[in-house]
Amino acid sequence: MRPVYLDNNATTRVDPEVVQAMLPFFTDHYGNPSSNHDFGASAGAAVRKTRLQVQTLIGAEFDDEITFTSGGTESDNTAILSALEVMPERTEIVTSAVEHSAVLTLCAHLEKARGIKVHRIPVDRHGRIDLDTYKAALTPRVAIVSIMSANNETGTIFPVPELAELAKEVGALFHTDAVQAVGKLAIDLKSTAIDMLSLSGHKLHGPKGVGALYAKRGVRFCPLIKGGRQEGNRRAGTENTPGIVGLGMAAELALKFMDDANTRVKALRDRLEKELLQRIPHAFVAGDLLKRLPNTANIAFGHIEGEGILHFLNREGIACSSGSACASGSLEPSHVLVAMNIPNSAAHGAIRFSFSRNNGEEDVDRVLEVMPGIVKKLHDLSPSSPARRKDFNQLQLRATTQPPSTVSGQGGCNA
Amino acid sequence: MRPVYLDNNATTRVDPEVVQAMLPFFTDHYGNPSSNHDFGASAGAAVRKTRLQVQTLIGAEFDDEITFTSGGTESDNTAILSALEVMPERTEIVTSAVEHSAVLTLCAHLEKARGIKVHRIPVDRHGRIDLDTYKAALTPRVAIVSIMSANNETGTIFPVPELAELAKEVGALFHTDAVQAVGKLAIDLKSTAIDMLSLSGHKLHGPKGVGALYAKRGVRFCPLIKGGRQEGNRRAGTENTPGIVGLGMAAELALKFMDDANTRVKALRDRLEKELLQRIPHAFVAGDLLKRLPNTANIAFGHIEGEGILHFLNREGIACSSGSACASGSLEPSHVLVAMNIPNSAAHGAIRFSFSRNNGEEDVDRVLEVMPGIVKKLHDLSPSSPARRKDFNQLQLRATTQPPSTVSGQGGCNA
Ligand SMILES: Cc1ncc(COP(=O)(O)O)c(C=O)c1O
Ligand SMILES: Cc1ncc(COP(=O)(O)O)c(C=O)c1O
Repeated sequence: MRPVYLDNNATTRVDPEVVQAMLPFFTDHYGNPSSNHDFGASAGAAVRKTRLQVQTLIGAEFDDEITFTSGGTESDNTAILSALEVMPERTEIVTSAVEHSAVLTLCAHLEKARGIKVHRIPVDRHGRIDLDTYKAALTPRVAIVSIMSANNETGTIFPVPELAELAKEVGALFHTDAVQAVGKLAIDLKSTAIDMLSLSGHKLHGPKGVGALYAKRGVRFCPLIKGGRQEGNRRAGTENTPGIVGLGMAAELALKFMDDANTRVKALRDRLEKELLQRIPHAFVAGDLLKRLPNTANIAFGHIEGEGILHFLNREGIACSSGSACASGSLEPSHVLVAMNIPNSAAHGAIRFSFSRNNGEEDVDRVLEVMPGIVKKLHDLSPSSPARRKDFNQLQLRATTQPPSTVSGQGGCNA
Repeated sequence: MRPVYLDNNATTRVDPEVVQAMLPFFTDHYGNPSSNHDFGASAGAAVRKTRLQVQTLIGAEFDDEITFTSGGTESDNTAILSALEVMPERTEIVTSAVEHSAVLTLCAHLEKARGIKVHRIPVDRHGRIDLDTYKAALTPRVAIVSIMSANNETGTIFPVPELAELAKEVGALFHTDAVQAVGKLAIDLKSTAIDMLSLSGHKLHGPKGVGALYAKRGVRFCPLIKGGRQEGNRRAGTENTPGIVGLGMAAELALKFMDDANTRVKALRDRLEKELLQRIPHAFVAGDLLKRLPNTANIAFGHIEGEGILHFLNREGIACSSGSACASGSLEPSHVLVAMNIPNSAAHGAIRFSFSRNNGEEDVDRVLEVMPGIVKKLHDLSPSSPARRKDFNQLQLRATTQPPSTVSGQGGCNA
């Protein structure tokens, strides 16, 4: 049976055209883009071309506003740390309670290790930011505001252009983690007050291990990774030419498929939601139904374990997730759903289905076919029945096949 | 004419076997290694396998001592910043005057921004570290010693196991930037006191944009890039599965070709050096002739501009460099040669030829064929002759095709 991949917010399949674009840079144009010879020159030219492709995708005014990084997490970390470095007199950060751990873990570390005050703006039960609390947190003490463009778990879209205008009024830099938005929503940065934006290749059918950080011209900058003079002195380290070229092609394709994402793919998502809600009692959609990524459905099935659902879906060859990939295996309910005040019992049973241009009606059909049975089975299984115990043991077995975690803590500093 | 690539210390051609190993992870096993379904599981298993391959290459005792990063620069930065974070009571760093900018630029920043005292241990005219100064700098105030295993410009090998023992006596962590040594020299970390080691995929026929940081078990650690729980909480961000798999295959191949590197490739290098020195008066080899990487020849041609030599070599399809790639285009003489007390006039005319397993006798023949003529031409050209001016203009033209540098400074913080 053809497997069904509905975990595109975790990562996407690299487009074969992207792979084709990358290939010559492994074995033919393999020079160091900074080298002063023909091998270097052809690689350097490719990097410059990619900057234009990314510029176009996000509507940046200048190509030198784009710096290539190793991914979304590095971009997020760089933006926040840079702001604190260039404005040492400002010691506060404003962010939301539902950011990705790439922002929240860093903020928690800064709070603990450097005494930075972090305002985590709450959201309502639809995941919408509380504007009053946001405005109240904005003072000239704030170095940077970091609010995501769209949430990875629910797809809720934040009004970042408006939020950026407000941040500007107090002289704070405004950064947005647009890792989930780029490639799914039309973005035109030059018409906004957004100072910095993060994106990641592997969320838009580009390669893993490459991303970009946009920084508006004039924004003062301090590199996170220091060394050679690559990337206009903003990111040291030999440029990942094949990865960068792949990101460029992915950006080009994302523009081409933008309509598809917002029509056909959106219709798939909508159909899945509608029919699941019809078939399964007590299920509901988490997120802002009016302002949402077109590909994301976060459905709370209530009173059953999300991990159990995922397990049985996986047996059927269907891949989706209970939250962000990097928190998977954790038994805590998602911090996003908790912040939305969704009761624990429902949050535990929430499943994220995330679509891409590779999905079709048959994928929706498959989920609709198996999901009611799975939910029923999990409801029926009493915690004490032998069947339940066996399944639970299997779940635990899966957990132990995760990468070794030699260090406790939250990806922060365990010093 | 077949181009001649002799700039393997800048970067190497990705081995076609490495590309083959990577390919399935772009379009087939494209899941997020942290995801709890079959797509994630196959990616996660590949990452675990790679850890073993890298473990074997560097002789680490445990696989969980290996953390994958985006490259050598990130690994170097992580090691140094981690040490300062876990030992805040220690405020000094010991390094050498000839480290890569991945270490030196960071150290200069820490000195300026955080008041960290940096000891840059000098080297003698062969590039060998001054042991007395080194010992004198070691006190309980030192958080970390960072000394490279082998120099990227001259190939000079440092006695890092001995240096690590000395660092241990004062309780300092010992890190080595082994970016140039790994894959060229046999390394067995478990028998040493080395606490941390950096390596980079693209220096050993692996992909760009991936590297690793070794940290001995028990060494306290603070991640540089903070976020999700990937890599045992030591490096956040979705794992670059294809890159990591490529690094693993590159590690395996490096072991297989280790003998070739130290016999056949070394003989190519030795022949080039011997015959060039015979044909070109006043030329000499920079570096420690007794303890050197087998693939590196740094030859000072004296009283002519290295950039001129590179320009004419490039016209002949021969790629090599005048120093490290990330400093190319700079008109300053190499900091490594300056630290070795090589007169400026000679340092300006130094060329690094760096071999790999892809080179053969015909590459040496080509260089020997054209080099005497190039040196003679550059000697003959008086600075005021029209011919000289024309060539100089061409050199400048090349320089302006480098990536845009919107920020001044040294890859450090321009806040
Ligand atoms: C000795 C040394 N250290 C560090 C680096 C940086 O490695 P990367 O370019 O992979 O960041 C290099 C090469 O660029 C190097 O030669
Ligand atoms: C909203 C958001 N921000 C940041 C990231 C981190 O990106 P990366 O894994 O490329 O580091 C992700 C996904 O992992 C994300 O969904």
